[in-house]
Amino acid sequence: MTIPELNDVHPAWLPPEAFRAVGSRRTLVAGDGTLAETVRAEVAHACARYGGEPVASGAAHDLALTLSPDGDLGDEDFVLGRRDGVTTVRAGGQAGLLYGFFEVVRLGEAAFAADRAAVRHRPATRRRMLDHWDNIDVHPVMGQVERGYAGGSIFWRDGVAHDDLTRVRAYGRLLAASGVNAVAVNNVNVHATEARLLTDRLGEVAAIAAELRPYGIRVHLSVNFASPVALGGLPTADPLDAGVREWWARTTERVYATIPDFGGYVVKADSEGQPGPFAYGRSHADGANLLADALAPHGGVVHWRAFVYDHRQDWRDRSTDRARAAYDHFAPLDGRFRDNAILQVKYGPMDFQVREPVSPVIAAMPATRLAVEFQVTQEYTGQQRHVCYLGPLWSEVLGFRPWGEAGPAVADVAVRGGVVAVSNVGDDPYWTGHPLAQANLYAFGRLAWAPGLEPGAVLDEWIGLTFAGCADPERLRRTLREMMDGSWRTYERYTAPLGVGFMVRPGHHYGPDVDGYEYTPWGTYHFADRDGVGVDRTRSSGTGFTGQYPEPWSEVYESLDDCPDELLLFFHHVPYGHVLGDGTTVVQHIYDTHFAGAEEAARTRLLWEKLAGDGLVAPDLYARVRERLDEQVRSAGEWRDQLNTYFLRKSGVPDAHGRPIH
Amino acid sequence: MTIPELNDVHPAWLPPEAFRAVGSRRTLVAGDGTLAETVRAEVAHACARYGGEPVASGAAHDLALTLSPDGDLGDEDFVLGRRDGVTTVRAGGQAGLLYGFFEVVRLGEAAFAADRAAVRHRPATRRRMLDHWDNIDVHPVMGQVERGYAGGSIFWRDGVAHDDLTRVRAYGRLLAASGVNAVAVNNVNVHATEARLLTDRLGEVAAIAAELRPYGIRVHLSVNFASPVALGGLPTADPLDAGVREWWARTTERVYATIPDFGGYVVKADSEGQPGPFAYGRSHADGANLLADALAPHGGVVHWRAFVYDHRQDWRDRSTDRARAAYDHFAPLDGRFRDNAILQVKYGPMDFQVREPVSPVIAAMPATRLAVEFQVTQEYTGQQRHVCYLGPLWSEVLGFRPWGEAGPAVADVAVRGGVVAVSNVGDDPYWTGHPLAQANLYAFGRLAWAPGLEPGAVLDEWIGLTFAGCADPERLRRTLREMMDGSWRTYERYTAPLGVGFMVRPGHHYGPDVDGYEYTPWGTYHFADRDGVGVDRTRSSGTGFTGQYPEPWSEVYESLDDCPDELLLFFHHVPYGHVLGDGTTVVQHIYDTHFAGAEEAARTRLLWEKLAGDGLVAPDLYARVRERLDEQVRSAGEWRDQLNTYFLRKSGVPDAHGRPIH
Repeated sequence: MTIPELNDVHPAWLPPEAFRAVGSRRTLVAGDGTLAETVRAEVAHACARYGGEPVASGAAHDLALTLSPDGDLGDEDFVLGRRDGVTTVRAGGQAGLLYGFFEVVRLGEAAFAADRAAVRHRPATRRRMLDHWDNIDVHPVMGQVERGYAGGSIFWRDGVAHDDLTRVRAYGRLLAASGVNAVAVNNVNVHATEARLLTDRLGEVAAIAAELRPYGIRVHLSVNFASPVALGGLPTADPLDAGVREWWARTTERVYATIPDFGGYVVKADSEGQPGPFAYGRSHADGANLLADALAPHGGVVHWRAFVYDHRQDWRDRSTDRARAAYDHFAPLDGRFRDNAILQVKYGPMDFQVREPVSPVIAAMPATRLAVEFQVTQEYTGQQRHVCYLGPLWSEVLGFRPWGEAGPAVADVAVRGGVVAVSNVGDDPYWTGHPLAQANLYAFGRLAWAPGLEPGAVLDEWIGLTFAGCADPERLRRTLREMMDGSWRTYERYTAPLGVGFMVRPGHHYGPDVDGYEYTPWGTYHFADRDGVGVDRTRSSGTGFTGQYPEPWSEVYESLDDCPDELLLFFHHVPYGHVLGDGTTVVQHIYDTHFAGAEEAARTRLLWEKLAGDGLVAPDLYARVRERLDEQVRSAGEWRDQLNTYFLRKSGVPDAHGRPIH
Repeated sequence: MTIPELNDVHPAWLPPEAFRAVGSRRTLVAGDGTLAETVRAEVAHACARYGGEPVASGAAHDLALTLSPDGDLGDEDFVLGRRDGVTTVRAGGQAGLLYGFFEVVRLGEAAFAADRAAVRHRPATRRRMLDHWDNIDVHPVMGQVERGYAGGSIFWRDGVAHDDLTRVRAYGRLLAASGVNAVAVNNVNVHATEARLLTDRLGEVAAIAAELRPYGIRVHLSVNFASPVALGGLPTADPLDAGVREWWARTTERVYATIPDFGGYVVKADSEGQPGPFAYGRSHADGANLLADALAPHGGVVHWRAFVYDHRQDWRDRSTDRARAAYDHFAPLDGRFRDNAILQVKYGPMDFQVREPVSPVIAAMPATRLAVEFQVTQEYTGQQRHVCYLGPLWSEVLGFRPWGEAGPAVADVAVRGGVVAVSNVGDDPYWTGHPLAQANLYAFGRLAWAPGLEPGAVLDEWIGLTFAGCADPERLRRTLREMMDGSWRTYERYTAPLGVGFMVRPGHHYGPDVDGYEYTPWGTYHFADRDGVGVDRTRSSGTGFTGQYPEPWSEVYESLDDCPDELLLFFHHVPYGHVLGDGTTVVQHIYDTHFAGAEEAARTRLLWEKLAGDGLVAPDLYARVRERLDEQVRSAGEWRDQLNTYFLRKSGVPDAHGRPIH
């Protein structure tokens, strides 16, 4: 087992310096198996650099750290404590050893300072997964990575898997250190070439799995529901057809014969042109169960996406509401899914907007295993050209209590199904295009493991690791926290207001276009006219979407008075003069937030500029971030001016402060 | 010389039946040379099918038709008459023989009926040219043919010239029969591969020229202004640099050594990213004259496009006006262009919109040879999915009198420079995607030859030739005239109103998007707000564009009362309640025309449907037109609803007739 280190690729949150505390001490790693070997190799690697010593069990004196198995815990769990000058990690299984090790790395010198009471760590949910929307062939419109903002794919290039998969192993290492344990290696829009990964190109998947396995990461595969027809030559893909069921069973057997720890399938069915069970008059439960049954004998799961809606809607028809679609399709199916079928639900009812209410599906299917899906790749949040730290968004969603304060949170619902996100990684030297977007990848893993973590504390962890060895860590930390803590809300301020969403350029989704989706079939409207703006989703006069929530939210969202202002235009169509909680009108709020958001973007750049030349960060990283900040400031100004101008022209209401609107 | 006949390609306006009258008679063709041979071959080809006889001069008895040279006329001119049972064409040169022959074909049996007085025919201008925006390599965004709506290129495929150029010869034949005598074979946006046609890939151009030569068509080449750098390895492309001048001279010598009748160069410089003389602080006259001097010894011309504007304009800046740009750049250069430099001016100041005023440049440069540029390819007029016969538009422009009724018309100005258009042809089996779009190609040639022709009469010619042999020609003619005569105005009605233009989807330019270009750098705005719409281009309060016209138009356009309603929003920003000449308000006009235009599109389909199954047109052609009409009706409804809804939401003014607006 060789620890992957890459030339010309930024080490993200695992630079050599991050291992100094462990690497300069004597450490014993007990236990057998692949992951135990990984931990031993990590320790040896760190010690080789920093003068410490990996110790075999026979020489257990003067130890600073021991990591050892403890059969009473769950496989991924560990107990970390320190007494009598020895830091100990007792782990339930090999995976616990690995996660315990990275917890020690994260603590750094603090792991070896004062005594600490033994604390049990366990992930909130068993499966913490990243979906890659990577294509094997370069898609003529979507490119190598659909919604990718960090270069090409780390798995695939120009039609085949990379020859050298060292980077995939390095990726697995980063993910393990953040808490992720599953990766889907291809786009949920499964085109012809990618469909064949399931059958004659399975070897390439096995090669990737081999690189990720030492870091405890299982590989999943996005599959095409029509595979029995496209790949198997069958006349149908009907999920109730015996031949189809047999084909999936045999095909899945072959997958497991090749990759024994294969994770399972991911399916986007009957969605945006992908095939699905509707073609055969079958339900999505029938579809999901077909694959679940094929996977069950091998311990695999199917992630079945709930992102089903009519993307050929008539914009003239105000009764159809895309926000309703997932609930309308799936809620009636509750209880009909197999136990190894996981319904993967986007956190909001629309599509990864900067602000949406939590999806009502999450509260509607108590008898179904649900996974919550986030988007680390910043499709609608600045595409890794803008600083937008998404930890606070995810934290807010995971902490949301659909049944009110006394009930469970979204994170509790997700315990059985897991947490999933679309990766933001590509073959860019910084992994994520914008170096600061690495924090989103790290935070996703950490919040998936421990949803209760405070997003600012996660940022501190990330900063401490990533810039380990920095000459003035506290100054750098303060600057980055100032730049990133509020960056999600800043992005919200200068883009679409009050939860209305989707005022983006069609297709690529970057930059403002207020009416860009207003007259399209995509179901994403704001209905702005000269009098007001917003979507009436109430039961009393609108689409009735509010009725998909349990109390209290069904009442809160229904009520113009009680609806949180930040979601006002998502639920209500209001006049421009409607007064918000802070006393400003809707239209004045639009002006104010857009001026403020653009100013905050400029201030973010100013904060970064103060780091220039003082060596706290590497010059190339400084320059890359600086270049992105220039674009963010430009773009935020464009958002401000277009949105303000649009609403001034439409409403005729002048800015109360007389600022320039065009 | 073999007459090109193609399998699986529609013969357009030269089906075999069109040659029946000539082919069933005895015809003498006198004269020598390539074009005379072509005419002889045409006669022989027709006679072989229809039983007539091509006659050598020794056997000149019982002749029905003679075509012979007459040194007193210009090379392309001919005199056609009939007396004593013989139809005679006396031609000034070989080209006159060819055009005279196709005039006889066009007349059909009428050429051989009653006596007709000898009438002299001569083209209104020496050069009648089609520009192909064809790429050699498939461009990742623009495809093989930029703004092409008829499949791939007839010249190029996948990086090379077609092996079999028979279709190019057939194209030349069609063009000769319409009056065109020059073709530029590559896109004015000259990418890296295409630039090399000038040098090491000249052989491919020569092969194309060889196919077009028998039909009197000269080949022109779009060249990159930076060629001395890109191809010649020089450090500069400065037009006043001796080395650069030498490079162009030598390069052009080699072109003429390979293609002795080469027509010349076409240049898009300092426009939408193309390089040009501005980079060296030189004027466009310097740039054009550089190439003119290289071409002059060989009799060639350079077509220098006047399409120069700032495509990175700030939409907030209302003082910059793209409409002004060509005049501002070029008018001061009048008199500074060589005599073989032709300034190629788009007919309107913007970009081939369905309705624009005539470009003021046309009246501003009396000491410069100007060519007027049209767009046969329907970029902004339905992209060959909509029926839109452009003859009336071109006729109106050519007949426009910039100095008032007593002065010359645009066609008179173009006499010295020529008439040019972007071709609408591709490798589609119908040449033009929409079979009825063939009429535009035909009409362009005819109007370039004789701008005074009535567009309806040109349609009759086209119908008579294209559907020669039809069982009920009069019924078909009536139907097509009803469908096509008013189709341009119909298209205008259901798209952007009152000359405002550009309410199209950005990028591909198909379908409505009222605000699509409103907040972009392209200089194409409508400034609609809740009170009114339109661009103030007056001298008194706007951009001053009206001042670029001579009287009377500078006054007519300046005056809100006198400005023609169809151009109202091009010149003025008016309230929605502004009353037009017919007594309706601007906003009611928008509603009325959009309802009417969409209804007219539906009626056009109905007219075509009445032809179903009666055999007047071939079933495949019927089906192709029918399929396009379905799309036109759908699209026109979309235009209607989006435009009406946009303006209802913005103005708040209800439709006076209570029709559905969303």
